Amino acid sequence: MEDVCVIGAGSTKYGKLEDSLADITVQSSASAIESAGIEPKEIKAGYISNVFGVADKQVHLGPVVMSNLGIPERPSLSIESACGSGSVSFREAFANVAAGFYDAVLVTGVEKVTHTGTEWTTTYFSYCSDFFYEGQAGASFPGLFASMARAYLAEFGATEEDFAMVAVKNHDNGLLNPKAHLRKKITVDDVMRSPVVASPLKLYDCCPFSDGASSVILCSKKFAQEHGGDYIKVTGSGRGGSPAALQGRERITTIPSTKIAADAAYRMAGITPRDIDFAEVHDCFTIAEVVDSEDLGFFEKGQGYRAARENRTARDGDIPINPSGGLKSKGHPIGATGVGQVVEVYEQLTGKAGQRNLKNVSTGLTHNFGATGASCAVHIFESV
Amino acid sequence: MEDVCVIGAGSTKYGKLEDSLADITVQSSASAIESAGIEPKEIKAGYISNVFGVADKQVHLGPVVMSNLGIPERPSLSIESACGSGSVSFREAFANVAAGFYDAVLVTGVEKVTHTGTEWTTTYFSYCSDFFYEGQAGASFPGLFASMARAYLAEFGATEEDFAMVAVKNHDNGLLNPKAHLRKKITVDDVMRSPVVASPLKLYDCCPFSDGASSVILCSKKFAQEHGGDYIKVTGSGRGGSPAALQGRERITTIPSTKIAADAAYRMAGITPRDIDFAEVHDCFTIAEVVDSEDLGFFEKGQGYRAARENRTARDGDIPINPSGGLKSKGHPIGATGVGQVVEVYEQLTGKAGQRNLKNVSTGLTHNFGATGASCAVHIFESV
Repeated sequence: MEDVCVIGAGSTKYGKLEDSLADITVQSSASAIESAGIEPKEIKAGYISNVFGVADKQVHLGPVVMSNLGIPERPSLSIESACGSGSVSFREAFANVAAGFYDAVLVTGVEKVTHTGTEWTTTYFSYCSDFFYEGQAGASFPGLFASMARAYLAEFGATEEDFAMVAVKNHDNGLLNPKAHLRKKITVDDVMRSPVVASPLKLYDCCPFSDGASSVILCSKKFAQEHGGDYIKVTGSGRGGSPAALQGRERITTIPSTKIAADAAYRMAGITPRDIDFAEVHDCFTIAEVVDSEDLGFFEKGQGYRAARENRTARDGDIPINPSGGLKSKGHPIGATGVGQVVEVYEQLTGKAGQRNLKNVSTGLTHNFGATGASCAVHIFESV
Repeated sequence: MEDVCVIGAGSTKYGKLEDSLADITVQSSASAIESAGIEPKEIKAGYISNVFGVADKQVHLGPVVMSNLGIPERPSLSIESACGSGSVSFREAFANVAAGFYDAVLVTGVEKVTHTGTEWTTTYFSYCSDFFYEGQAGASFPGLFASMARAYLAEFGATEEDFAMVAVKNHDNGLLNPKAHLRKKITVDDVMRSPVVASPLKLYDCCPFSDGASSVILCSKKFAQEHGGDYIKVTGSGRGGSPAALQGRERITTIPSTKIAADAAYRMAGITPRDIDFAEVHDCFTIAEVVDSEDLGFFEKGQGYRAARENRTARDGDIPINPSGGLKSKGHPIGATGVGQVVEVYEQLTGKAGQRNLKNVSTGLTHNFGATGASCAVHIFESV
């Protein structure tokens, strides 16, 4: 196996974007190539992640991107795993570089849905659930995560204010991120008074619908060393699955796929959760971040809410979570999110994160899942 | 690198199916697992290929399939590369097994669109083109392939009757395939008199819109030997790309991605086109099969139409092409097609193809592309 590195990263702004799906995919891809300081022709393949290309009338995005970059002869493909598409695409690119099939590849995640309006976006997203049991029965994602939140409150004695703390922290972090979708300071009171979406989740417990694209360049260590510039190593990669429908799980205050993926990633990296300096995790709803922080092993099961309450996951806490602002503030263009997390880790570990750069960090983790965690991928990165 | 083998294959019927997208995906997957004679839990990951899950309100198909097979903890993903999705998914599964990430994986391709009607199906399919230059300008796939056909007729002196010979041959082959969509004997006259779709292509020059799912089990050689049963080896795998829009190509009587992918596959297998005993190629339109047969190196450029005219690609010709009936007669459920081709090769090389089993074949090739060949994958298989 080759050692695999990230040598460049780029992203569009996240939010409501005017340009087409194809255009933002190309813009983001070009910015990562520029960040890596390489020529497009050095890219041997393109891994795109996207869920609802149909919404902007363009699937088969790979060839469009490669053609626009001036390398139409290169192979490409699109990968979909609902909201976890980006990390799964990253994993496939990682596997191919590790195995020596390619020495340098482009990974771009993208989504463009806001132009379809809230009703269509919600409808499209419901197709990511186990539609037979969930979507068609009216169980939308806010409702499904509300069930998890309700169970968590009952099981561990957390309060709704604890969940609100996650939103407040991620909005604080997003204020430092010029590409974040929601750059607005909020308080626990603001969250508590925001409209109920699916009790106990309120509007500010939910991430927004966003457009956006993020890209990284993955390559062999040899390629990274020969092409100069800053790079980080991918030291762990894990994947896992859970029963597709929430009703098929024994317990809904944990996400099985996170544990499986994290265990595999820690094992590959030869480290434990205690060795992680910071993490970008999947906070589609505030409850998700609390559960993730336990399933990833940062806190004991049932203690994640206390960690949020005590600001242990803030920028200056023991384990900063979502320094980018997370899905909650940075935004959640669903096909892009998993790749955007890697962009953040690359920038943090190479000192390119500007105002939001954490101090003394050398090991970062990304965690991204699809739907209610039916699919998941976890990656671990280290400075060189 | 591990040697990679196919140890099982299964498929639904191709055609207009009543069951849901999720159901046919599960049915096909289960039949391949049964064919392999293994337990679902021996499958370590699921590679699904599908393009328009939106049409049946289910994307994120992987977890639904894995959950229904009783292995929800296993990772899965969906891969899209337009009409070439199946072969690209197969390629990713191959790469992962070759690299030793998994010892056995499920590859299932699926599409379910006919219930949306012809107008919606055509509209969806147009999103597979470079929509900015093609789809939105009204350049549908029949029109784009008609341009290629017109250029071919002008450049090489072929006749429309030569193209018709491809359809007649593939319908003859499909008569022997119980799972084929269009099982109907046709004559050159029938093709010539069928309604013009996009001149010079007539209705019988075009493959149908189909629903269907196909699956194979890919594994390491060690796994294949330990689990008994019939298996074949994957000896070559290649991918390539072309300018996304037809207008971006220097010449439209050849598909660049086919040549790139085929060269790579032949090189990996250490053989030449002359060593191939039979091939399943991408005949979405009759002109495509003629061009493919040249780009794959079976005939000189500009001689493919003569080979069709002289029946050299028939079951008893020098190089049988599309013994399954091909896209033209077997049908074209776009996400399934590339996997379905591997099912055919597996059945031919293990003597399970019934009435349509070719005699004395030990090396087969599959060729599957997306759109007008913007993306392509070629695989080579050998008996053990």
